[in-house]
Amino acid sequence: MTTNDSSPRQLHLNAFIMATGHHEAAWRHPHVDPRAALTLQHYVEIARTAERGRLDSIFLADGVALHGNVKHNTHSAFEPLTLLSALAATTEHVGLIATASTTYNHPYTLARAFASLDHLSGGRAGWNIVTSAGQDEARNFGLPSRPDHDDRYARATEFVQVARALWDSFDDEAVLADKASGIYADTERISAIGHVGEHFSIRGPLNIRRPVQGHPLLVQAGSSEAGREYAARFAEAVFTAQQTLQDGQEFYADLKRRLATYGRRPDELLVLPGISPVIGRTESEARDREAELTALISPAHGLAQLSAMLDTRLSEADLDGPLPDVGTATEGNQSRFTLVTELARRESLTVRQLIERLAGGRGHRVFAGTPAQVADEIQEWFEDGAADGFNVMPPTLPGGLDDFVDLVVPELQRRGLFRTEYEGSTLRENYGLARPASRRTATYPKGNAA
Amino acid sequence: MTTNDSSPRQLHLNAFIMATGHHEAAWRHPHVDPRAALTLQHYVEIARTAERGRLDSIFLADGVALHGNVKHNTHSAFEPLTLLSALAATTEHVGLIATASTTYNHPYTLARAFASLDHLSGGRAGWNIVTSAGQDEARNFGLPSRPDHDDRYARATEFVQVARALWDSFDDEAVLADKASGIYADTERISAIGHVGEHFSIRGPLNIRRPVQGHPLLVQAGSSEAGREYAARFAEAVFTAQQTLQDGQEFYADLKRRLATYGRRPDELLVLPGISPVIGRTESEARDREAELTALISPAHGLAQLSAMLDTRLSEADLDGPLPDVGTATEGNQSRFTLVTELARRESLTVRQLIERLAGGRGHRVFAGTPAQVADEIQEWFEDGAADGFNVMPPTLPGGLDDFVDLVVPELQRRGLFRTEYEGSTLRENYGLARPASRRTATYPKGNAA
Repeated sequence: MTTNDSSPRQLHLNAFIMATGHHEAAWRHPHVDPRAALTLQHYVEIARTAERGRLDSIFLADGVALHGNVKHNTHSAFEPLTLLSALAATTEHVGLIATASTTYNHPYTLARAFASLDHLSGGRAGWNIVTSAGQDEARNFGLPSRPDHDDRYARATEFVQVARALWDSFDDEAVLADKASGIYADTERISAIGHVGEHFSIRGPLNIRRPVQGHPLLVQAGSSEAGREYAARFAEAVFTAQQTLQDGQEFYADLKRRLATYGRRPDELLVLPGISPVIGRTESEARDREAELTALISPAHGLAQLSAMLDTRLSEADLDGPLPDVGTATEGNQSRFTLVTELARRESLTVRQLIERLAGGRGHRVFAGTPAQVADEIQEWFEDGAADGFNVMPPTLPGGLDDFVDLVVPELQRRGLFRTEYEGSTLRENYGLARPASRRTATYPKGNAA
Repeated sequence: MTTNDSSPRQLHLNAFIMATGHHEAAWRHPHVDPRAALTLQHYVEIARTAERGRLDSIFLADGVALHGNVKHNTHSAFEPLTLLSALAATTEHVGLIATASTTYNHPYTLARAFASLDHLSGGRAGWNIVTSAGQDEARNFGLPSRPDHDDRYARATEFVQVARALWDSFDDEAVLADKASGIYADTERISAIGHVGEHFSIRGPLNIRRPVQGHPLLVQAGSSEAGREYAARFAEAVFTAQQTLQDGQEFYADLKRRLATYGRRPDELLVLPGISPVIGRTESEARDREAELTALISPAHGLAQLSAMLDTRLSEADLDGPLPDVGTATEGNQSRFTLVTELARRESLTVRQLIERLAGGRGHRVFAGTPAQVADEIQEWFEDGAADGFNVMPPTLPGGLDDFVDLVVPELQRRGLFRTEYEGSTLRENYGLARPASRRTATYPKGNAA
């Protein structure tokens, strides 16, 4: 995958948008207004900044429970699909990727909502598929604890299969709107799906036309064994947390290798590692900015975050001692557990140092530097087989994205690594991914009019 | 309720928006563009027209299956919550009411989506609560047939109770965002709900702040006995189909009378009958416009629609004979069944005539006349105890709403019956309804951070 041939291979850049930014102390920074981040206008401005920078997409994470650390950190003021629908009406080009759970949604409802977002945005919708590992999430949906890892992925598999069948069930060409004959839709192009599976029984068709993109872009972020197989089978973009170039290269090669099993080419899936760049016009300004954020960290919050990531309790841990024995990964959290414990061991970090390292990106790569240094990092990973682009996680918002768009993007453009104009009108077109063909086969359900 | 006292009682007007309009042949009308109705821009323009007319709200119906008559009539190009979120970003004043099912949604998901819409719109969200009587809807959600009427209402009761508890679970005042102390939220103001009921088990809290309006406006439209009790208990506005002033008065008085059972005052619920006004500058122009639409009706579609309304098969019926014996109402359709069969008997209509009468409003009152005549009708119902306002169903869109706003609204304003400026910034404020007090009582769930 380490291509350095003559083709003008270009980066793909996604902005991962989180309230006041990805640094956990961002909301306390003097330049950040945490109350403004509760407004739609905050997100409108961010999305327009992403468009100004010609970024492929913006992305919203999600969970279906209130995160445990709201005492010390911001939460999202909105639900992703509704927020991105509002942004569909206030932007023109940028892709709109919402996280949604296969464990706590129904395929008919969710496939329809994403189809609607895709139509509202003229083909800019993406779905980050998650299986919801949180215990608190389970308890909001009638379960005593999260379903186990394999069960969640089995349901996620059936879910995306039936969602694709639903998107294909109502041909985009079905609407004739022929006033003369009085025929509105050609019902030969609308089909039941007659799905009867282990988790779902769904007759169809979907009550909304096929999305502009055929299917919304399918995104995935789990890096466990099951997560990687799932990504290789279904995903078209993968967000991943990789701390070192070598780890990034291994992940990239592994994922691309798995695609063949599913009859897919390496270029049918984009690997986008996370990077949280703290940008300064000089190296010392970048370091100062990073230190400024670090100084605002609340150790109690850091311990709570670390406890959540490792699915254990560390509230009594010695901040200046090494990471205590935290056992082994649990069902919910396999890849992040490994990343965090390995980071602590590899660099012999104290708990406080570990908290500081994680505060910026929760395990994603944090990098402080000048625009040229950030561009160097991006270029190195991109050209050395670790990335097709990046999941850019601004440490503060909106300022951190302004810095990236105003300082790093022009540098990447100068180096010929990034577009200066959008290639197409849909998210798929900008990601360089094909519109999927429809697999509709069945016929319209006859004889019902309820 | 027939108040003619000195208080400046004012009409409340909702625009019920359906693709190309409420007349089933609207899409075939020379002035209507059925392809334009597939775009967001169509709805943006309609919503702005509603605002220009100072209408309280716009409303989208919904079902979770493709309606059976798509061969002959338009369908909605979007899902309501996503579409209204887009309109939240492109309007400033008008209320945004989405239909959503209590049978095929989960309270955590739906309460959150409506809270998000309320925040996105600055307090303009409303929820039309439906229990989804369609057989095709059941089959999209794993059921062989619709749950029975009482079961649907029992679930709807628990659903709205838990939704209200969830909206109250995260105080609007909980966000402190105190940079100095590092305290983002006062967790004493965020509570689990610990709901364990017959249909749902939900721990809470909701992961979104209390809606701007406290709760979104609760709307209901079922007119069966169970539907009326449900409305009296929970609803703040009721959309209803009433063909005659007398029926309207009886329904109005009955519903207002029921409120006392639940400790509610008559003015805590607005009754809004549907009216589909075909407006002409002269009476003959109005008649011509109505005839023009009638001439475009497809009898096959009319029979299919009638079959759906009566939950029976009439495709072989003699168009010029009387309505055949259609048995009795089924579980799904009680109030509309009675309305349609009574209309046919009362006026001795042939099947063709019945189809023509229903083509305009599916059982809602259709009225062709001049702006003054439409205003007279509205005023009569409003002043004679049949209505607190109207659910205005334009026969064609966007033109039919333009006519209403440009011709009827000024007449109502001249008569002192309708506002000339919005009274408030939220839907509740414009409807003259109080913001509900929070009933939050429990405490924040301790000791979890997943």
